[in-house]
Order: sequence, then structure tokens, then C-alpha cells
Amino acid sequence: MEKGINELEVKGKLAKEASRKLACLSTEIKNQALKEIARSLIENKAVILKANRQDYDQAKASGMNDAMLDRLLLTEERLRSITDDVNSIAALPDPVGEVFDMRTMPNGLLIGKKRVPMGVIAAIYESRPNVTIDIATLCLKSGNAVILRGGKETLRSNIALAGVASAALQKAGIPNGAVQLIEDTERTLVNELLKMRDVIDLVIPRGGAALIEFVRENAAMPVVAGGIGVCHTYVDKSADMNKAVAIVYNAKVQRPTVCNALDSILVHQDIASEYLPKVAGELNKAGVELHCDERSLAILKKVAGLKLAPAVADDWGKEFLALIAAVKVVDSLNEALKHIAVYGSGHSEAIITEDYTAGMRFLNEVDAAAVYINASTRFTDGSQFGLGAELGISTQKMHARGPMGLQEITSYKWIIFGDGQVRP
Amino acid sequence: MEKGINELEVKGKLAKEASRKLACLSTEIKNQALKEIARSLIENKAVILKANRQDYDQAKASGMNDAMLDRLLLTEERLRSITDDVNSIAALPDPVGEVFDMRTMPNGLLIGKKRVPMGVIAAIYESRPNVTIDIATLCLKSGNAVILRGGKETLRSNIALAGVASAALQKAGIPNGAVQLIEDTERTLVNELLKMRDVIDLVIPRGGAALIEFVRENAAMPVVAGGIGVCHTYVDKSADMNKAVAIVYNAKVQRPTVCNALDSILVHQDIASEYLPKVAGELNKAGVELHCDERSLAILKKVAGLKLAPAVADDWGKEFLALIAAVKVVDSLNEALKHIAVYGSGHSEAIITEDYTAGMRFLNEVDAAAVYINASTRFTDGSQFGLGAELGISTQKMHARGPMGLQEITSYKWIIFGDGQVRP
Repeated sequence: MEKGINELEVKGKLAKEASRKLACLSTEIKNQALKEIARSLIENKAVILKANRQDYDQAKASGMNDAMLDRLLLTEERLRSITDDVNSIAALPDPVGEVFDMRTMPNGLLIGKKRVPMGVIAAIYESRPNVTIDIATLCLKSGNAVILRGGKETLRSNIALAGVASAALQKAGIPNGAVQLIEDTERTLVNELLKMRDVIDLVIPRGGAALIEFVRENAAMPVVAGGIGVCHTYVDKSADMNKAVAIVYNAKVQRPTVCNALDSILVHQDIASEYLPKVAGELNKAGVELHCDERSLAILKKVAGLKLAPAVADDWGKEFLALIAAVKVVDSLNEALKHIAVYGSGHSEAIITEDYTAGMRFLNEVDAAAVYINASTRFTDGSQFGLGAELGISTQKMHARGPMGLQEITSYKWIIFGDGQVRP
Repeated sequence: MEKGINELEVKGKLAKEASRKLACLSTEIKNQALKEIARSLIENKAVILKANRQDYDQAKASGMNDAMLDRLLLTEERLRSITDDVNSIAALPDPVGEVFDMRTMPNGLLIGKKRVPMGVIAAIYESRPNVTIDIATLCLKSGNAVILRGGKETLRSNIALAGVASAALQKAGIPNGAVQLIEDTERTLVNELLKMRDVIDLVIPRGGAALIEFVRENAAMPVVAGGIGVCHTYVDKSADMNKAVAIVYNAKVQRPTVCNALDSILVHQDIASEYLPKVAGELNKAGVELHCDERSLAILKKVAGLKLAPAVADDWGKEFLALIAAVKVVDSLNEALKHIAVYGSGHSEAIITEDYTAGMRFLNEVDAAAVYINASTRFTDGSQFGLGAELGISTQKMHARGPMGLQEITSYKWIIFGDGQVRP
């Protein structure tokens, strides 16, 4: 423990020093380093996959469920997909150095803002080992030093991945300390890390609700958190029936284990008896279980072969992360808006409607990171929104909201060019 | 205490409800309300000034020093200046509703961002009663509900000011709960307030270092803090002598009790023996005391009549807030940069130089909210930077850096217009 804390302090100091140098690195050098990482990951795939296999076997032996095991697993294909992402990040424009809002004031001062890195970012995450490379490379591109703290279950994988990345960075002339992994899995080290406000400018927790809550409660420095998505799709009375079925099906089924997947379907009463059997029939083909309020249950229990259950209080506002959806019939758009205000997590919310005013009211009144008219909430994602890649999806309003790309891990400074001006 | 907490909960609930309505208010109604506040403040000046006089008398009787007493005092002129500010805020563009970064994706989705209020802002501040109106009106204009918690010494003034503002808002049809003052001065109530993460989206502490530190340590919600300014001006060897004297004089003397005032003068060794006597002579006319390192003391002690003291370790990195400056001779720009990296508080830093490359290096390498070439750090201020008014000056990198105007207390949401798109 004592040793762990000392190592943490050393890593913090190194990261701080590296961050000053990283802030001034040219885009060319950063891109070369990213390409070197991509190349090295492929070159060292045997080592990486072997380490991952050990993690996998141990996790399996300890009884981890299949969904989690699948998240943990690296394959040659997945490794190639990771390196593709690294090369994509190399191809993105460099956010650092952008100058904006420049203006000349009446006294002749030329004033504006220049985009700069945040400094040192700490990422605390669980499970998927690809996060190690995603976050390391996004931080590098944006000129930030990063301290990574992955889950215990993927420690060997993370050591292998971070080791390959560090060696590649050294080869590319990137300052030592730009990317560091905490290898000690002692839980209390996270507490120590969260106290290091002088060193760490921003903490990004990625994982389950408990991890995020823990980081939020204990971090002495700013946190950008998100990931919890309780997503509603409201099918308005004027919805196009085909769009409403296709969108709800996609939002629930295309990848049910992620945060932007649908959790609750709200249906206007005027359309419920027509819409619900149709959508339930489609969802049923994918094995979706529906937790229904009284009115929707009355409609759907007439349909044979569905997986139905009466909704319990806990179903509203629940992130299912599985092939389950809650269903509720509402009297009006107003009731839908109220339900979402109470039970939504501020992630992604959608309305399906052909009524212009209903759509615009939904867009204006729903308070969430992403609000959709006539599209699947599954689009809430850095690459789908045109950011190229993402560090996570923020559900907070401060600093960054929604998918966080390179720009979202930068700050700015005011730059002022004077000619001897003094304040009167 | 129990009663206080209950009242806090009621206020929180009211604020949350008000924030939903405020987010949708038209600019016209908000501006009318602002003008109504300005009008009412003048109309009720007798009540306000009387309440302030009671605060003043009590503070004086309890031994408050003159500088603090002056900060606390309201006069007819100061009240007029406050109302002028309110009218200025009414004249500023409304940040809410701005749509930006709109783009059409290859799949036809129209995606962009829309600026929205943060929600509920809590302001915890000390001393100056004008802050009550400044913050209330900036929050109103930006569609945020606000809970104010001023200092005990100005409680009567704040009750009078907030009372007048609330009545004006009611008259203008603004939802009840838009502006609320916590009148209970029980210290533990602040702790309770800082736990209310479900209600409060952002806390802004304004005041001394102890207050800011307390809020940072204890707030469960995001904090934007700042205000501590340890500001350096570095006089380069190629500095224009007249500019260097005028700028340093202005930065130190024009208003020494504020955060953007100069604290330390760094002088290049090649220019020190010419520059230091000149600037010290000027500063001396204003009664400035200089805390000198060994080399600057050796130069300045030859000048008669100066107020000099040898610098102690504590003088470096100290915010004097008084007619005192630390002085240090440095070997090079590099040494100046290092000194600022160690002792600066990330507020405002300036270089005086005619050397283009030295100026640009300083601008690029100094990590502070505002970095100047050839101008006084006293310009770091919302109105001087063209923001119209300010809530405070952030010295953190997240969300907002430097002077915070209306835009800095907003967030955005992603808005997505679809036509039935689903994710492949």
C-alpha cells in the first residue's frame, strides 16, 4: 500500500511534466506516434492476445457471465478494429492551438481564446480492454497526459496494451509519462488518485453506476461522468406507424447492452391499440420481454406468444441493458414529457411524430444530452455524431454534454496582444 | 436547524420547478423583468440603503476593517451603478436558444447543438451586496434559477435587495422561485446546500480562498471557482521601458485589492539596473512596498526613500491584495516561465517585451486563464473582455476559464432531426 502510493506520486509527477511538453508538441509528431502505436499493436498481437486469454480464462473460472466475458475478450479482429480507430484518430484535425473569438477591443487590445489541452487526465474504467487504447490515443492527440486505471479482470491485457503503446511512444519521441497505467489493483489506490488535485485536471470514470457514483463522491478534481442511459421513445398519436416500429425495434434490439439503447416505450392512447401489437410482434421476434403498464397489458395480452409481465414501479427509470423494455400508454404529449422529466437520466430521448409542433415541443422541452425527432436513440455516439471517436458520453451539463470527442478534453486560455494598454 | 433544512428543501424544489419554466421564457419577457428590477431598485432605494446602513453600523461596531467596510457599503451612487449593470445585462444578446455546429450526416440526420440554461445555480458569496443583484440578473437572463447565499455581514442588505428583485420579478410574470435568497445564516445550511445534487446543477463560490476551498471540498455537484489571482508581470530584456513602467504601475496600483492586480514583478537581469529604479520610483509615489530578492534589493537600496523589505519565501506565490509587490531578477525568459509555472495561480500573467519570439513563447507556454503581451493584467474582467458582465473569474480549466459571462452559465443539448433513421 505504502509502495503503491509512492508509485502513484511518481506517476503523477511524471504525468505533470509530460503534460507541459505534450501541450507544445506538433500535430505531425503526435500523428506519427499514433501510427506507431497502431503498427506496434499489430506487431505485438501475439503477446497481447496471450495476456488477454489469461484474463479471460481466469474470469471464466471465477464465474463471470457470458456477456461480461464477451466484453473482456480480445480477438485478432477486435485488435484490428482498435488499430483502425487509432489510425482514425491520427486522421482527425488537431484541436490544440485553434484560435477563436478573436476581436479588437475599442482600446486596441486584440483579445481571443486559444484551445489548449486540459493537462493530466485520469481515466478509471472497468472491463473492456479497448478502452485502454481508445483513451490513451484520444488523450495523446489532444495533448493531454493520461493516467489509466483499468479493471482488475483485464489487468494482464491492459499491461500488455499499455506496454506496447508506451514503447511505441518512446520510439516516436513522445515524452516519458504521457501514457501511464496503474498496475497495482489495490482498491484504496483509487481513493489516493482521486485526491491528487494538484496533478490531475480531470477524471473520467467509465463503467457501471457504482463506479461513477464512487468517483463523483470522492474526486477532489473535476469529473466528467455519464454512461447511465435510461432512454425513452415516445410514439405520438400522429406517428408514422412504419417509422415508429422500425425505430423502436432498432433502439431496443440493435445492441441492447449499451447506454443509448431504448428502455421505455411511451405510446399515445389514441394510437396504442394499433401500434402496440405491431411493435410487440416485431420485438418478440428478437426475444424482447415487455414490462407493461395496465393499459398496454390490456392491449397486448390479446396477442398470442408475447413475453409479457406487468410493470412494477422499479421498471420506470430502469436501465435494462438487456432485451427488456417497459411499456406505458400515456394520455398526451404532456404526460410523456412529464414521465421523461421524472424518469429519464438525461441521456437520449426520442419522439416519433409527423406533427411539427409536437416534435418541436419535445425537442425544446426535454432536458437530455441528445433529443431526437424520428430517429433511433442508438445514434448517440461520437462516431455517429461526426466526432470521429469518443471518450465517453457525458450526461452532465457542465463542460461537455453527450458524446465527448477530442475537443471535449481541451480547455482554452485567453490570449491578449497589447501595445502598452493600461486600465483607466 | 431542522426548520432551516426544511426551508432549503422547499427552496430547492421551487427553484427546480422555476428552472423548467425559465428555460422556455422569451428574451422579451426576461428583458422586461430585468428592466423592472432596475426600476424597482431605484424606487426602493430608501429601504435598501437603510438596511445596508444597519449592516454597516453593526459591522463597524464589531470591528470590521475599513477596506471590508467599504466593500460592504451601498451608496446612492453605487446603487445606480448596480442598476446600470442590470440594464446592460438586459441589452446583451440572449445566449439561450443559439443553435450551432449543425450538420447533415451522410445518413440524412440533421445534427447540431442548441444552447440551454444550466438549470439551477447556487451562489455562495461573501461581503459585497452588489453580487446579489449581479448574479441574480445574470442567471435570469441566461434562463437559470438561482439560490443565493450571501454573507452574514450583509444579510439585511441582501434581504432588501433580493426582496425588491423578487417583487419586480413577480410583477413581470417570472415564475416564483427564479431568484431565492437563503436568509438563515446557520453555517451548517451551506453543507446541506452542497449536498443537493438533484436540485442544483452548478455552484459558484465567490469570496476568499477559505470559502472557495470549503465549497470545492464539500460540493456534491460541479463547482466553477476562481478568484485567487497570483499575477506576475515579466519585464523582458527587450521591453520598452516606458510601457514596462506604465503597465506595472497600472497593474499594481489602479486597484490593488482585486484578483487581477499584480503581485510579483520579474525582471530580466540585463535590464534590471535600468528598469527597477524607474518603476520603483513610480510605485513609491503610490506608497507601494517592495519585497525584493537579493539581486533586486542590491539595485534598489541605492535609491533613497523607497519602502523595501527583503523577500521571504512566502512572498512568492502570494496574493497581496494590497500595495505590496514582490520583485525578483531572473536570468532569462526560461527562468521567468519556470517561476510562473511554480508560483502562478493560473489567473493572469503578462510579459512586457518588444521581442516577437519572446512574446509568442510566453503566450504559448504560460498556463493561465489570461496571458498578456504588453498590457496590464487588470484587464481580466468580463466587461473589459467584451462579455458585458461577469459572474466571476474561473481559474479552472473545465467548462469556463477566465471571466464568466452569460454563455458560461449555459450548457447545450444535441438536437437531432430524423426521417426514420435507424442504426445499421
